[in-house]
Amino acid sequence: MELIKTTAGGGYTSFASGLPDPQLFPVDTLRALTDEVLTRDGRAALQYGPAEGYLPLRDYVAGLLRERGFAGVTAEHVLITTGSQQALDLAARALLDPGDLVALETPSYLAAVQAFDSYEAAYAPVPMDSAGMCPQALSSARGAKLLYTLPNFQNPSGLTLAGERREKLAAWSASNGLALLEDDAYHDLRYDGEALPPVAALAPNPWAIYTGTFSKVVAPGVRVGYLCAQPEVVRRLGELKQITDLHTGSLTQRVVFEYCRAGHLEPGIARLRAAYRPRREAMLSALETHLGGIAEWTPPAGGMFVFVSLSEGLNASRLLQRSLERRVVFVPGESFYPGPKRPKNTLRLNFVSAGEEAIAAGIRVLGDVVREALA
Amino acid sequence: MELIKTTAGGGYTSFASGLPDPQLFPVDTLRALTDEVLTRDGRAALQYGPAEGYLPLRDYVAGLLRERGFAGVTAEHVLITTGSQQALDLAARALLDPGDLVALETPSYLAAVQAFDSYEAAYAPVPMDSAGMCPQALSSARGAKLLYTLPNFQNPSGLTLAGERREKLAAWSASNGLALLEDDAYHDLRYDGEALPPVAALAPNPWAIYTGTFSKVVAPGVRVGYLCAQPEVVRRLGELKQITDLHTGSLTQRVVFEYCRAGHLEPGIARLRAAYRPRREAMLSALETHLGGIAEWTPPAGGMFVFVSLSEGLNASRLLQRSLERRVVFVPGESFYPGPKRPKNTLRLNFVSAGEEAIAAGIRVLGDVVREALA
Repeated sequence: MELIKTTAGGGYTSFASGLPDPQLFPVDTLRALTDEVLTRDGRAALQYGPAEGYLPLRDYVAGLLRERGFAGVTAEHVLITTGSQQALDLAARALLDPGDLVALETPSYLAAVQAFDSYEAAYAPVPMDSAGMCPQALSSARGAKLLYTLPNFQNPSGLTLAGERREKLAAWSASNGLALLEDDAYHDLRYDGEALPPVAALAPNPWAIYTGTFSKVVAPGVRVGYLCAQPEVVRRLGELKQITDLHTGSLTQRVVFEYCRAGHLEPGIARLRAAYRPRREAMLSALETHLGGIAEWTPPAGGMFVFVSLSEGLNASRLLQRSLERRVVFVPGESFYPGPKRPKNTLRLNFVSAGEEAIAAGIRVLGDVVREALA
Repeated sequence: MELIKTTAGGGYTSFASGLPDPQLFPVDTLRALTDEVLTRDGRAALQYGPAEGYLPLRDYVAGLLRERGFAGVTAEHVLITTGSQQALDLAARALLDPGDLVALETPSYLAAVQAFDSYEAAYAPVPMDSAGMCPQALSSARGAKLLYTLPNFQNPSGLTLAGERREKLAAWSASNGLALLEDDAYHDLRYDGEALPPVAALAPNPWAIYTGTFSKVVAPGVRVGYLCAQPEVVRRLGELKQITDLHTGSLTQRVVFEYCRAGHLEPGIARLRAAYRPRREAMLSALETHLGGIAEWTPPAGGMFVFVSLSEGLNASRLLQRSLERRVVFVPGESFYPGPKRPKNTLRLNFVSAGEEAIAAGIRVLGDVVREALA
């Protein structure tokens, strides 16, 4: 965040942000729909609403989730949240007591870890390889209260949990009595292959909580996310949500619902994929050209990020200083590791917020910086 | 909430809700402004934004707060929140550890008490008389960590803290090292007399947190509230806010800002006062006619509620059953009392959500129900 503030508007090529490309927001469609909602249903759209969310939107989300593999879920399995960040925070608030152990991928999503930190969680970091979290390493996480996973195009690693590992993770957490918190914020931003089933849909677990968001496929500024869980859990989290912010915006929930209902969601996702896929190609090709042989990365099948590991001796934070001088920004990977073991030789690159030429030019600078450090 | 769901659309006269009258929402103005914001600034209005809030809105709120008596406050003293409920929850989350004692008015705002409950607070209830919280009763609250007060037209009691008591409360909490959480959600809905200074502005207290909202004076469905505190506290609460929901809606913050900037706020408040004042008169006059001599209440100088105390032996929850049969709904006061001592003979009446004739007819029914119970 500080990095983004410092470099805002300074002519930087930013690989640092976690932001989608605002040029792709469906501004005109959302403007027309907002006008329609306020014209037709303005008083309800501006009034207080139920803590669990706007019922037609809950119902619509339930339909989306059934398509993703959650058989039989209905509106009562869905809680609308103020972005999926709130879903993560509510789940953590309901589930974690000080000292409770959270099993999670290393590295992991920073703002989730910060939420767990705020409830004084401890961590059982589970290593990943190119197929995501390693099930054979889970034995070290026995005794954990909660398993947190971001299985699709993980932020920051870009890694995707392989299908058979999803089965294992689901079965393991259910049979060991762990709550499961699955963060699927990037679900629809898949550029290769078929969607894999959510972990939470693969084994009955009364404490499985699955979170998603409209931030990446409609727009983040509307702050509409959701979670899916058993109805009793939704009720409990709904009570917590009520004391947290009463409810998510009545107007923006309706606008998102109308966007979906009018059939804009699928073509919008197709447009995003068509725009982001070549940027990923540009990033991977530039990495190959400028960092091939001196760094490692796993090509992401979707999402917004690629995670690069440099030679052991290199320090990404120090490289960032050099890189900043040449107007190229990235985030050192160090901050994404919970606990004391934080490799210093990794960095996260956002490949969606710059255009293809800027990506190529920026990665060339990064290549130069790394080569100079190695020299 | 359950009560509101049960009686929705059933031809009830509702004195139960906590809702403002949606007929008074500035729907057309907000529609025009939303269109303008999305036309001019759509991409930023739909993008992620800073956790602390949209800077021009923070700046505007700082100006409002200076007018209320907070000398010298600037944008950095202001955090924009998802309704003032979130401000209360963030303050409680930052300040309270399990077992910490909260001094507060009895009765008090239910959703604040529920937030404190969620952090396992204990309570030092301070009684009120017609001039609000009684300072002479504060000695019993020594040792409390936090003083929570809703000084203007309190929900549920409708009481207003007298000017000289504000001085005392401010000085007492500062000199005894208590954090001060002042909830001023109803500030602008004053129907008689001049505004009194906020308690938090009357004595330097590093942990004074003042909360307000646009829910009552613009519309609740936009979910835009705020808090005012020392910049270090704002930074700390901003970090907490970030893990809670990243930030409040970028679009709705801009719409609220434009509403204020274009000069709609003052005339909007004048319109609300002009509409709500005669409803209060209708309520007070009907109470006098139908419950005079058999119940007690303090006429509220503003806000949305009047709180009625019946004879000691009467049970408001039982009266509610009779009243529901005749299609009149209210909230028994019992639920607004923290701790085990909960008088059963009180009830809260919302006087803004029904028209004057409906108020008169509804209170007549209530009078009949009470008289029958006394007979």
